[in-house]
Amino acid sequence: MKIRITDGRSVPAVAGESIYETLKKNGVYLVASCGGKGVCGKCRVKILEGRSRVEAAGKLRKKDREENMVLACQAFPEENVLIEIPEDSKLVIGDKIAVAKSKDLLEFLHSVEAVFTPPVKCTALNLEPPTIHDNIGDLERVRKALDAQGIHGMNFSHDFVISMPKALRDAGWKVNLAYTDNMEAFALSPAECKNEYGIAVDIGTTTVVLYLINCIDGSLVDAGMTYNSQMRHGDDVITRIVHATEGGGILDLQRAVVDDINDMLAPLLEKNSVSRDQVVAAVIAGNTTMAQLFWGLDPASIREEPYVPTINVFPVWRAGTAKIRINPQAPVYTMPSVGSYVGGDIVAGVLASKMHRNSEIALFMDIGTNGEIAVGNNEWLITAACSMGPCFEGSGIRHGMRATEGAIESVRIDPMTLEPSFGVIGDSKPLGICGSGMIDAISELFFSGIIDQKGKFASDLKTDRIRIEDEGPEFVLYRGEIKDIVLSEADIENVIRAKAALYAGVSVLLKEVGLSLDIVERVYIAGGFGNYLNIEKAIMIGMLPDLPKEKFSFIGNSSIAGAYLSLLSQKMREEAEEIARKMTYMELSVSRGFMDEYMSALFLPHTNLDLFPTVRQAYNKLG
Amino acid sequence: MKIRITDGRSVPAVAGESIYETLKKNGVYLVASCGGKGVCGKCRVKILEGRSRVEAAGKLRKKDREENMVLACQAFPEENVLIEIPEDSKLVIGDKIAVAKSKDLLEFLHSVEAVFTPPVKCTALNLEPPTIHDNIGDLERVRKALDAQGIHGMNFSHDFVISMPKALRDAGWKVNLAYTDNMEAFALSPAECKNEYGIAVDIGTTTVVLYLINCIDGSLVDAGMTYNSQMRHGDDVITRIVHATEGGGILDLQRAVVDDINDMLAPLLEKNSVSRDQVVAAVIAGNTTMAQLFWGLDPASIREEPYVPTINVFPVWRAGTAKIRINPQAPVYTMPSVGSYVGGDIVAGVLASKMHRNSEIALFMDIGTNGEIAVGNNEWLITAACSMGPCFEGSGIRHGMRATEGAIESVRIDPMTLEPSFGVIGDSKPLGICGSGMIDAISELFFSGIIDQKGKFASDLKTDRIRIEDEGPEFVLYRGEIKDIVLSEADIENVIRAKAALYAGVSVLLKEVGLSLDIVERVYIAGGFGNYLNIEKAIMIGMLPDLPKEKFSFIGNSSIAGAYLSLLSQKMREEAEEIARKMTYMELSVSRGFMDEYMSALFLPHTNLDLFPTVRQAYNKLG
Repeated sequence: MKIRITDGRSVPAVAGESIYETLKKNGVYLVASCGGKGVCGKCRVKILEGRSRVEAAGKLRKKDREENMVLACQAFPEENVLIEIPEDSKLVIGDKIAVAKSKDLLEFLHSVEAVFTPPVKCTALNLEPPTIHDNIGDLERVRKALDAQGIHGMNFSHDFVISMPKALRDAGWKVNLAYTDNMEAFALSPAECKNEYGIAVDIGTTTVVLYLINCIDGSLVDAGMTYNSQMRHGDDVITRIVHATEGGGILDLQRAVVDDINDMLAPLLEKNSVSRDQVVAAVIAGNTTMAQLFWGLDPASIREEPYVPTINVFPVWRAGTAKIRINPQAPVYTMPSVGSYVGGDIVAGVLASKMHRNSEIALFMDIGTNGEIAVGNNEWLITAACSMGPCFEGSGIRHGMRATEGAIESVRIDPMTLEPSFGVIGDSKPLGICGSGMIDAISELFFSGIIDQKGKFASDLKTDRIRIEDEGPEFVLYRGEIKDIVLSEADIENVIRAKAALYAGVSVLLKEVGLSLDIVERVYIAGGFGNYLNIEKAIMIGMLPDLPKEKFSFIGNSSIAGAYLSLLSQKMREEAEEIARKMTYMELSVSRGFMDEYMSALFLPHTNLDLFPTVRQAYNKLG
Repeated sequence: MKIRITDGRSVPAVAGESIYETLKKNGVYLVASCGGKGVCGKCRVKILEGRSRVEAAGKLRKKDREENMVLACQAFPEENVLIEIPEDSKLVIGDKIAVAKSKDLLEFLHSVEAVFTPPVKCTALNLEPPTIHDNIGDLERVRKALDAQGIHGMNFSHDFVISMPKALRDAGWKVNLAYTDNMEAFALSPAECKNEYGIAVDIGTTTVVLYLINCIDGSLVDAGMTYNSQMRHGDDVITRIVHATEGGGILDLQRAVVDDINDMLAPLLEKNSVSRDQVVAAVIAGNTTMAQLFWGLDPASIREEPYVPTINVFPVWRAGTAKIRINPQAPVYTMPSVGSYVGGDIVAGVLASKMHRNSEIALFMDIGTNGEIAVGNNEWLITAACSMGPCFEGSGIRHGMRATEGAIESVRIDPMTLEPSFGVIGDSKPLGICGSGMIDAISELFFSGIIDQKGKFASDLKTDRIRIEDEGPEFVLYRGEIKDIVLSEADIENVIRAKAALYAGVSVLLKEVGLSLDIVERVYIAGGFGNYLNIEKAIMIGMLPDLPKEKFSFIGNSSIAGAYLSLLSQKMREEAEEIARKMTYMELSVSRGFMDEYMSALFLPHTNLDLFPTVRQAYNKLG
């Protein structure tokens, strides 16, 4: 049984497995922000030929159903099928951005260390074959050669020793010994130490990004992205922790994300002719809950006061322990975390921003499913997490999507006609709206008087762009042949709550260290926004502090960037641990000031306009 | 289905499992030097009630069969059975000897180190419970407490960390951390570090001996002995290596001996109310092949020139790795070996003899399945192995048995009447003949003229003690109601070959270092002989060198004694490694002198009587 795709590809189908799962296992990723449980309604595919059992129609519109459109996660082929994947159902990673970014990272690394120092080292052992007059044990022969090179204190696992005698003989006693940072003998190979790859993985609450990296020249070989399948068990870390603490849930969640990584990796390895065993190191970056779940550790204590994680600075364990399908002996370095709600993704981000190396005071904001912020410089660092929800990643927004091709990324609304115009990533037909588009749209809706300070639609406007549906009023951004793209009052409320949490977090953090905004010389914006965010508009809605535009830098997915750096450099791993140790964590949920700040920020742009002089100015201009 | 024994015990039977296997699993050990493959004919039991399927009768005599006697390894119960186990089928360990010996060992240990230092250490951690103001990770809390105690560089396995959070909370944050010599965190327990046990195991080619030891006071809690089930796959190390290198054989052999240990251990733990998890350390002593097979390492290279083992000094691995059913995290220390044919059993033996600590030159001889010898003192040590075969342990000798109750251990033959008299261990009815009995008997047979210098029976003697059977002539030592006990010409030939190999080894080794026998001030005799060997008689047959009797000391099973010392003392483990490193191994099979010496020693006592002045004197006295 097969699933054929209209682009010419074909994948083997398995009875009882959904089209979504089958495609995913074969490296064809669909948008599915609910993780494939039939809720988000985004993994639409059209069945052109063949019979499928369809379990649920989810959010499919009548028109979709009439056109034989199904949710791929709810459709189970019963014979060979031919499908068409609409553009807005395809999940794509910004490959070009990643590769461009990798050049900057490599340049930086070369400035820090002369050679790459991944967590696996390699040394050539030219052993003399044993003779009757020199018949010490194989392991003693290896130990002696290491001693002669000044390498002492090596540990040899049982697995290593089991395979050693044959490896030595097969290679004619001229071998390369790979070993880890913490002196664990790893593998013997006859080849020169020239074919080593590593992976850097960013385990986000919503998405998982994987880089395949050549550890010798540092180049980015390939990249992949998929949704985190743990979403089946909840959208945010709290619901996942609840699932984990209920019987057996930990293993479910661990398996889900490990499968995501393995499913993404297998086609990448095949495509690039890299064998599983050649991948000899991994770095994992994720928030504290994601990191603990990756290793199968119970996250229960993260959720309960006093919010204690099991580990901040992880030991280096083996790929085999986590069942990651690379070389099972490969060391897996986990980016260290600060506390329960500021994890290794943020430490990686701060590392990639380099703010910990400079004397100027910087503000770091990672806008993802959660919003984490850090302030500081090369002398001090303070950090906090503000619960924003995943709306800027497209979740919880009717037509929300990630910042990939087809996303409305910028919006203008003519204040006279109230007619919108917009820019779409890739200049293609719009498929949805991404975070920057939402910010633009809300700013324009507000400044054109369509919504008020609370985000509610005005009732007396002369425009057919506003319509009232069952779920409430909505603004039609785009009238499509297949579907319209709208922004509803509920969507706008979600965005306002998110931006309020972020802004309140920044305010409280700065107050805690007794600093005012003026002292901040640089603002790093990390997260799915990439380079698309319109700073002025984000300031207009009161999401970002009112600072000069030139102080802002976009650093994209800084979690994967920090993981990339850490994979290639021991110095970076040391600096990451230093960051994790040095950063002071502030628990906002027990901060008296936070709730006040949050309530004040639930307006556009804020209840206190003194904080937003440029917004006041713009507003006054309108009259 | 059950097997009841006439002594009142009862064990559950399993369809398709032999009586031998079932009894063994339940801690009832039968003599079976062939390991239960129906060859040696020693595991006789009488079936009084119930039906059994009998696969083969092996060496059972007609009379046995008429009395419903079966070989337990060839009999499979088909319903409840009641059996009687004859005295000579019971395998017993000299418990009293072991306990007496343990007192000497402890006295010595106390003279070496003030406290016992097993490979597991323990420290109390009185942690403060986390609060919202001190919410570092659990592992960071443990690390901090260790740092405060000056304990740095601890490694934490994934298994350890998985169980840590619950262990800490269950114990109210007051815990004891056990960790290994090589700084691997082991287990957290709420109890004080006062309930720790260890096992010392001697894996012989023929038998496996296990001591259960209290690691706090050093006392020997209990002991067990069984046959090494690998015997199913061959009597000596060479046939086992051949079996191992044939597909899948390694795992067979590993499982066999690991099962032996586990089967022996389970009833001992139950009897002494010790839980599996309380057993936190193990020391394994065995020859090189036995040690490698225990860890599942391919022994192929041991057998092929240039006779290289995989490891001499073993890393400390975990009990879980070898599937020994004690605490799976328990470190397992393997006694280091010198080379392919001088293993950890000999290093343990030299350690227990203490010859490596004294300036006097000593000769160490371990007479077991193989014969290993060492010469030296606190400055130098040289060693060799001579292939003796297991005859002194009772194997390959018609009525051979180990030196346990019922064994004929001393023999006198009246030179006039040629009638024998003998002493039996435990003063019971004789069941067989052990090594010391064989030596006595051959010496007496020779001096009374019944056999010649080559061990052949004289044909013209007036005695009905000599009879000719199908297998050749034999001497009847004891006329029993059920069975006679005899020594055949084939038995005598076996003993002569064994003693010749041993004597030739000693000669070649001394020649190698340019020393004569006179310089040897002490001779340690290790092995199954215990205290039973008659030195003069062993000299008479040319097995031991002709030295004054007071120079000889019996040290019994010195392999288990050395393992016992090493379990309780880090200093002893260090000395063992020092011995293994320092001892020069001599490969007799490539020594030109060895074959000559061996041929010369295939006589009683030797072709060159100048080497045996006391024997010549005794012989001359006879006229």
